[in-house]
Amino acid sequence: MKTDIEIAQEANLKPISEITEQLNLEITDWEPYGHTKAKISDSLLEKFKDRPDGKVILVTSINPTPAGEGKSTVTVGLGQALNRIGKKAIIALREPSLGPVMGMKGGAAGGGYSQVLPMEDINLHFTGDLHAITSANNALSALIDNHIHRGNELNIDPRRVEWKRVIDMNDRVLRQIVIGLGGPLRGVPREDGFNITVASEIMAILCLSTSLEDLRERVSRIVIGYTYDEKPVTVKDLKIEGALTLLLKDAIKPNLVQTIENTPAIIHGGPFANIAHGCNSIMATKTAAKLGDYVVTEAGFGADLGAEKFLDIKTRAGEFDTSAVVIVATVRALKMHGGVNKDELKEENVEALKAGMENLQKHIETIEQFGLPFVVAINKFPTDTEQETNFIKSWCESRNIEVALTDVWANGGEGGIELAEKIIDKADNENQDFQRIYDLNDTLETKIRKVAQKVYGADDIELSAKAKKQLVFYEQQGWGKLPICMAKTQYSLSDDPSLLGRPRGFTVTIRELRPSIGAGFIVVLTGDMMTMPGLPKKPAALNMDVTPDGKILGLF
Amino acid sequence: MKTDIEIAQEANLKPISEITEQLNLEITDWEPYGHTKAKISDSLLEKFKDRPDGKVILVTSINPTPAGEGKSTVTVGLGQALNRIGKKAIIALREPSLGPVMGMKGGAAGGGYSQVLPMEDINLHFTGDLHAITSANNALSALIDNHIHRGNELNIDPRRVEWKRVIDMNDRVLRQIVIGLGGPLRGVPREDGFNITVASEIMAILCLSTSLEDLRERVSRIVIGYTYDEKPVTVKDLKIEGALTLLLKDAIKPNLVQTIENTPAIIHGGPFANIAHGCNSIMATKTAAKLGDYVVTEAGFGADLGAEKFLDIKTRAGEFDTSAVVIVATVRALKMHGGVNKDELKEENVEALKAGMENLQKHIETIEQFGLPFVVAINKFPTDTEQETNFIKSWCESRNIEVALTDVWANGGEGGIELAEKIIDKADNENQDFQRIYDLNDTLETKIRKVAQKVYGADDIELSAKAKKQLVFYEQQGWGKLPICMAKTQYSLSDDPSLLGRPRGFTVTIRELRPSIGAGFIVVLTGDMMTMPGLPKKPAALNMDVTPDGKILGLF
Repeated sequence: MKTDIEIAQEANLKPISEITEQLNLEITDWEPYGHTKAKISDSLLEKFKDRPDGKVILVTSINPTPAGEGKSTVTVGLGQALNRIGKKAIIALREPSLGPVMGMKGGAAGGGYSQVLPMEDINLHFTGDLHAITSANNALSALIDNHIHRGNELNIDPRRVEWKRVIDMNDRVLRQIVIGLGGPLRGVPREDGFNITVASEIMAILCLSTSLEDLRERVSRIVIGYTYDEKPVTVKDLKIEGALTLLLKDAIKPNLVQTIENTPAIIHGGPFANIAHGCNSIMATKTAAKLGDYVVTEAGFGADLGAEKFLDIKTRAGEFDTSAVVIVATVRALKMHGGVNKDELKEENVEALKAGMENLQKHIETIEQFGLPFVVAINKFPTDTEQETNFIKSWCESRNIEVALTDVWANGGEGGIELAEKIIDKADNENQDFQRIYDLNDTLETKIRKVAQKVYGADDIELSAKAKKQLVFYEQQGWGKLPICMAKTQYSLSDDPSLLGRPRGFTVTIRELRPSIGAGFIVVLTGDMMTMPGLPKKPAALNMDVTPDGKILGLF
Repeated sequence: MKTDIEIAQEANLKPISEITEQLNLEITDWEPYGHTKAKISDSLLEKFKDRPDGKVILVTSINPTPAGEGKSTVTVGLGQALNRIGKKAIIALREPSLGPVMGMKGGAAGGGYSQVLPMEDINLHFTGDLHAITSANNALSALIDNHIHRGNELNIDPRRVEWKRVIDMNDRVLRQIVIGLGGPLRGVPREDGFNITVASEIMAILCLSTSLEDLRERVSRIVIGYTYDEKPVTVKDLKIEGALTLLLKDAIKPNLVQTIENTPAIIHGGPFANIAHGCNSIMATKTAAKLGDYVVTEAGFGADLGAEKFLDIKTRAGEFDTSAVVIVATVRALKMHGGVNKDELKEENVEALKAGMENLQKHIETIEQFGLPFVVAINKFPTDTEQETNFIKSWCESRNIEVALTDVWANGGEGGIELAEKIIDKADNENQDFQRIYDLNDTLETKIRKVAQKVYGADDIELSAKAKKQLVFYEQQGWGKLPICMAKTQYSLSDDPSLLGRPRGFTVTIRELRPSIGAGFIVVLTGDMMTMPGLPKKPAALNMDVTPDGKILGLF
């Protein structure tokens, strides 16, 4: 079997100028980055404000397992399939982080015959968005510590600086550090730590901004820490929202590339899906909606995290509608939810599959609560047996649930035509009765409880002493009307990663809150969230190389 | 008077495709980065290997002072002037670091009517080269600490890891830090520190590589530290030269932009001029020489550092000739060398000017020792009086030294025509007897002594106990045949920054050596070298902004 990069290297990429021409873009609407990548002007939304918007199709999934679901691959394959059946569809994806690329084998640009290209650029520096975010994040850090060092007029408490430095690298030794050592010329010593860039609030801000002006406004609201008398200190207090926005002036522009079948794809922004909302940028999704009749986009992790945040956070900030939802499931992952362990997934096991369907069932209920039409997509793996896929199909059919078998990794758009036809039917013809899980006027505690009960299926929530204190403080600060961003394990519907399937009778423990006032949400932590990954014993970097004539080896 | 950015914003930039067309580049020879920037393929040198090379003109200067010399501005102005007199000339400059941009007002892309554009991009993220270098540098750091954390097969002594992390930011609190705190999951604790990106050995390597293959080879030779039994550990030992080269595959490609008068300019690489060699990349200079009949390029700081390293390090590694040298001086700076303090530079003072000429005299002697033809350029400032500029002219003329008054900040190429004509005459017609200051077969100590005596005018050198021990160790390691890279204050010919003019009777103290085996030189430290700048009390960032329609404010 060919690898992703081998398939990618055989692809017949069009010059990006052909893709922009196909989208009827003028030369002032976009800028090339090499011959196969472009940035689309952030003023396009204003220019096309009277144009009707294309319909947004969200791709989400069951709870991920090590067996893999292939949500990005289905997203790309569906976009390709829609074009094959004559629809003008554009794909909108997250852009990958460089850090993990050096560590684990495997990219984040789809796979097989449903991938976005040039995958080697997309997975390395791409158009520099993540570097710009790193720069803006760390300029803020340097300016905070410089402020403290040079008299500390704002009375910032060095023990309460919450703003962390970031680096786009898996670098565990930077998780907990001490800075400013070596005497008065080297600043004021304090404890600090680095997060990976995608965990920066600036990434979340970039993804939730609707314009450069909105981005500047959001950046100015970032709370970087607290004074000695526990008042929040913002970027506006430091007077550097202008400089940080300047560093992000190009990063805010959505990136245009193409799939292996030359379908236009906008790849832009990639915030964490736990401490942030895990969706590509609003700029990307809305731009895609101006350029296509259908936008196929995804959200990180399963529907309990990704779809909930897409619908409760992203579509609120972006003020756009969702027309239909694809829920991706795989035979392998459902068998794991049904109790099969990783080494035995190749063997047919309809009983386990049957048990695992509970997980899918809960995510279906969640999408039904949102009142959105949906189709279940079975993403085919070579080891699936016909009996297994047939079981899922009849399970769905007996419940009047639309289902489609997709084979987009191996067959590209051709493998997603059934799904394409069914989802278009849903998006075009089915009535929807969209409602969000919570109201912004609910208290923060009510919002958390509603998500835990309605989306996770919990009996209730339990607040730590710290969280209780924070809830009072946050409401006092006027932060109570913000949406919440749940940081929970992606592996389980509950807050215990070992509980697969559909856990029942559990309580979600709320450990602590964090304000992302610039992004515009309150992060709710249900456990220890890793915001700086480490490298494995044998990092993928050991296999990588580039030949003198530029051929790339070992990237995937 | 208009500011640099105001002048820049009024400029009439051509699409970069017109510049590449003017240079007869084919579409496969270059890639666009936006509409006014491009990267030139690193395979162009191979493609054009049989084409004759253009002549290289080096722009250097007297010892810099806070009064300013405007070496980059003269370089750009001279390039423009050469085109005005009908010569096909290309400018090759260093690319600026983002870090200082946030701190101090003032860019690094020339000034006034002799600047390279788009200056706002060049001074911010440009084409991402510095970000790629940061990534490669820090991937190496993460992989070193991961190696130590996961069993330390190579027996690396954590106390002797010399490879530092970097960030393209002025961030003093990162100068001295402790990493790996917080228990076994967070790595092995050790002391560390961040340098600014331009101080990374990877930057020096990028600038001294002649191809991607050469870069890979150099990267593999980097010494990252020592084992417990004091053996050097290299990147090759860690087996990650391929991954690091992959991260640099685009950064090695020279960047093409244009000046305000549409003269082609290649801006690529920008290593420190103290702990590194302070010149733009060999790829840039050699590519420019393939595309133009004349290349105008510069080297950092005064001739004692920049020109010496350009001629002893860069032209050795790149195996190219230098045809003529411009030595830039200003009335203001010469007056400072003659004892006038900064606040009184506006007042005419021919006596001080006369005293300050000694500094210029020494740099002239240095270029004469190299056996290269040269012209002195007086870079005009509005406060210069005719009597002052006339004094310099007659001083030169009485010594048979070619001199030209330039006014390129205010008048662009037009202000550099006299200089252009004189330097072309030197480059085309004057015999040269080029010889370097030292032979590679000299011992390291002899090399250091020769530079100190012949270039700085020192009586001798004095070696610290540490440096003596290192000299022995380095020769044992087989590093003795490498050129040396002197790290000395730029403000004085001596190692004491307060000694202006032409110090005599001094000894240069050699404090310590450092191996830059990848770059291919031994760094010789004569004092404390700052490799991580700090921010001032009122950072330039406070004035920066960008309007909703993308207009940039306060960048310069």
